[in-house]
Amino acid sequence: MKRTSANRAVVISGFKFSGISAGIKSTGKPASRFGGKDLALIFSESPAIMAGMFTTNKIKAAHINLDIIHLTSQKGRAIIINSGNANACTGSQGLRDAKEIVKMTAKELGIPPESVYIASTGLIGRPLPVQKIRKAIPEAVKKLSPYSLIDAASAIITTDTFVKVAPRKIKIQGKTGTIIGIAKGAGMICPNMATMLCFIVTDIAVEPDALDSAIRKAVKKTFNRLTIDNDMSTNDTVLIMANGELKNRPIKKNTSLYHKFEVALTEVTCNLSKMIARDGEGATKLIEVRVKGAATESDAEKVARTIANSNLVKTAIYGKSPNWGRIMAAIGRAGVEINEQKINIYFNKFRLVNKGLGIKKIPRNLFSKKEIFIAVDLGAGKKEAKILTCDLTEKYVKINAGYT
Amino acid sequence: MKRTSANRAVVISGFKFSGISAGIKSTGKPASRFGGKDLALIFSESPAIMAGMFTTNKIKAAHINLDIIHLTSQKGRAIIINSGNANACTGSQGLRDAKEIVKMTAKELGIPPESVYIASTGLIGRPLPVQKIRKAIPEAVKKLSPYSLIDAASAIITTDTFVKVAPRKIKIQGKTGTIIGIAKGAGMICPNMATMLCFIVTDIAVEPDALDSAIRKAVKKTFNRLTIDNDMSTNDTVLIMANGELKNRPIKKNTSLYHKFEVALTEVTCNLSKMIARDGEGATKLIEVRVKGAATESDAEKVARTIANSNLVKTAIYGKSPNWGRIMAAIGRAGVEINEQKINIYFNKFRLVNKGLGIKKIPRNLFSKKEIFIAVDLGAGKKEAKILTCDLTEKYVKINAGYT
Repeated sequence: MKRTSANRAVVISGFKFSGISAGIKSTGKPASRFGGKDLALIFSESPAIMAGMFTTNKIKAAHINLDIIHLTSQKGRAIIINSGNANACTGSQGLRDAKEIVKMTAKELGIPPESVYIASTGLIGRPLPVQKIRKAIPEAVKKLSPYSLIDAASAIITTDTFVKVAPRKIKIQGKTGTIIGIAKGAGMICPNMATMLCFIVTDIAVEPDALDSAIRKAVKKTFNRLTIDNDMSTNDTVLIMANGELKNRPIKKNTSLYHKFEVALTEVTCNLSKMIARDGEGATKLIEVRVKGAATESDAEKVARTIANSNLVKTAIYGKSPNWGRIMAAIGRAGVEINEQKINIYFNKFRLVNKGLGIKKIPRNLFSKKEIFIAVDLGAGKKEAKILTCDLTEKYVKINAGYT
Repeated sequence: MKRTSANRAVVISGFKFSGISAGIKSTGKPASRFGGKDLALIFSESPAIMAGMFTTNKIKAAHINLDIIHLTSQKGRAIIINSGNANACTGSQGLRDAKEIVKMTAKELGIPPESVYIASTGLIGRPLPVQKIRKAIPEAVKKLSPYSLIDAASAIITTDTFVKVAPRKIKIQGKTGTIIGIAKGAGMICPNMATMLCFIVTDIAVEPDALDSAIRKAVKKTFNRLTIDNDMSTNDTVLIMANGELKNRPIKKNTSLYHKFEVALTEVTCNLSKMIARDGEGATKLIEVRVKGAATESDAEKVARTIANSNLVKTAIYGKSPNWGRIMAAIGRAGVEINEQKINIYFNKFRLVNKGLGIKKIPRNLFSKKEIFIAVDLGAGKKEAKILTCDLTEKYVKINAGYT
């Protein structure tokens, strides 16, 4: 289950990274396995086109309010990210603190404050330790290097057990472009922007509207189809920077190149989603719930989400228990019209439920795999939806009972 | 936390009870602490007025379809209940099995089958062991006694750690009437009929429509305001029998006596709700979430439910952690318009959050209590709602990972 997805060789033209320890995280926490890094900087040597998406939680972290304003220009040069403190529910002080850090970062980099974006993740409700971050910014700038992507990826995580990096190459007008995403997951992850933080950089030139459209579609299909614990974060942030260093003609919306780019970008966010699900707090299994045969896509999604968010289903899978009745109960309470006698349920392609009734002999090894595929056929139409999640374990409880 | 609420002296005129072991439950399970009882019978010596409510899950246990038909007469004599097998997702065989048991019970009691109700709870998707139950029915009838309420209450539970009995006396036209409820809770308990099984008997004479109205109102205010794990059961059943042995003039709807009866009945279901929350699978704490200052009651309920169903809030309380940020995050994703700067949050009357911001010094003993009251003031109006729940512990995971 636990594996590092890091690709240490990855370099991307025109981007530099750093990840250092500013002393924001307390020591002895899981994150200190990654050297206690808690401040990351992503820098584009030239102005980049930017797009982003944020949590739909009504209570938003301070950084989001600032980023939304900066994003109106659709341009940017840098992203400064801290872990260990969410800077959420911190009122006007939180916004002042975020502005202050942006200002200091801009000054140190010699660029305008409007071109600096900021993100935070960690504990909610504590003031950001601005002094510590202020002191650390010069070091973060000094350590910027094309080879330090993994350091940045290590500095943005909290209870994650491995660093999440997803690279992808694509041919654009005869040249090889690169898209790389890094992400932070683990807990408080749920429908509608199911990640806490994700930053993507690409050297491919993309027009602002095309970049905006592509990231929205990619997020909708991947991060928004992921749930760990149905707890939507206040801090969810996805930002993408396209610096155009590949020198291709900028990709325009609704061209064949655009679609190629969107597919590649979706692959990156999809890979990061799977890493996040696999690394859900305390998780031992990655679970993919696919509901097909629904009358509408919305029906399919409702049923898939209800199954994926069921504590009883998730504990049963953790216990390797063939308790398909809990899946039936979840289907029945999803708020969708169903016909019990038409439902088929498959576990890793084995039909466990046939027309609403359980199969008598269930093979023993069905539940021992690390990746569980649950497929439900509602027999009511042709629409489908997919949701990623993980199992619910004692370790999830332990991690979240002792977080502060 | 663990205590028995049994009142061994309780007797109610004209009702007899029994609770025996039919061998439906496998041995060695938690329930075997209560003598492995798994078959209960409730019998009224004279025809009683009946009312009931059932799960709103689209997938319903077989017994519910039968009870709904019997309830059209608003009358009944007996309820036969088994634990250890839910007889849900068992198709047409399940319905035939339920009918068969009703028929056998009726024959043994010498009453018409239409006057016998049935309920099941336990594992979903396995055929009911009809042979075992058939063999046991004569003993269940033979053991009927006015003094065996506790035996019946013991036979309906599964992973519960204590028997749930709530008696209440009220003065009606100068006489003392009694209402007694028994319930089974523990897991798969969630909004809209938040109990698996509850049976209430009263010697007070109540007109059918008045009984129906009173039980609906009581359930709405209590069981439907309870969530353990947001997993709605396929089997939820509440049945009430009023045999009129008190010989009062039958209570009519919308009279002052009716209101007195409704209040007393609500007290019974409220007490059972609290017992169920306190005895949530693996629970160490009873949590009451009260949201006030909402623009509408629906807003208040949405926010209260989102907090009560948050795994992160529930694990934090288990860990005695003052992580109020998780409550703020839950408020923000409840789908209700809110103003972060107006929110106050109280823990056991101590103000933890003032106008959206955390209080610096939190008393240590705030989280050590067995009963936690979370009050949220949204500062947006005058409406309120209350939801009962419990904490989420490693034991919940353990119980549900190893249930089959």
